[in-house]
Amino acid sequence: MPLTTFKAQAHLQQGVQVKASARNFEVTIDEPKELGGTDTGMNPVEAVLCALGACQAIVARTYAGKFGINFDDFRVEVEGDLDTDGFMGKPGVRPGYSEIRYTFHIDTKEPKEKLEEFVKYIEEHCPVGDSLANTVSLKLDSIVTGEQ
Amino acid sequence: MPLTTFKAQAHLQQGVQVKASARNFEVTIDEPKELGGTDTGMNPVEAVLCALGACQAIVARTYAGKFGINFDDFRVEVEGDLDTDGFMGKPGVRPGYSEIRYTFHIDTKEPKEKLEEFVKYIEEHCPVGDSLANTVSLKLDSIVTGEQ
Repeated sequence: MPLTTFKAQAHLQQGVQVKASARNFEVTIDEPKELGGTDTGMNPVEAVLCALGACQAIVARTYAGKFGINFDDFRVEVEGDLDTDGFMGKPGVRPGYSEIRYTFHIDTKEPKEKLEEFVKYIEEHCPVGDSLANTVSLKLDSIVTGEQ
Repeated sequence: MPLTTFKAQAHLQQGVQVKASARNFEVTIDEPKELGGTDTGMNPVEAVLCALGACQAIVARTYAGKFGINFDDFRVEVEGDLDTDGFMGKPGVRPGYSEIRYTFHIDTKEPKEKLEEFVKYIEEHCPVGDSLANTVSLKLDSIVTGEQ
């Protein structure tokens, strides 16, 4: 299935809580109290980091065989810097992430050079990583009003 | 809290299932069977669409007052095109999203022009939207080996 269209929806609840879903899977998104929420779920920018780490882990699993890599455990730690003044409307400050960093924790005995080559491949073939590192065309389809 | 560092981690389980977490919140990420998974959760690129829709809904809630907008319901439908050949390593095909589209479903009696101005503001101030529409610097911190 080369060209695929993935879908999701997000339904605003009380305050800034959101029920977001894709197919039959739902996740609750909210903000911590200090960002105006009720802290019932991770927030959208944390969800992006989760998606990135998960995507890298899936690419790792998928291509470990190709690189002859064996591991007993694979975990990614991800962190990203974001200036919340951008969201607050301060001119000249972007609302999104400026930088995202990650550390791969791999329980393996493979040599360093082989792992570096493997990690480079992961970075270059990760769909979420590519969507963040490069530009994606975002388009408003329509605004539909009236009772839902 | 202007410059903030958000964190998450992703821990690979059996097959391509991943337990991803931020603070005390966890989400299960997997792939559908046709993409090599066991279908126990949304996949990473669907999670990105969920994060985008949720982020837009949160910006809408936060700024509705500023625009004098009243609504009884707010829902976003998001879809994105991705060529899975990129993930499969086909040269010249990007692994990530090429285009993401969204429709805002708003149960409101506000006039069209006011809603268009409101939606434009949402698009310009959404942290996840900005992270996708513009480039983010992605950096490998380190590769840590050995037992975790």
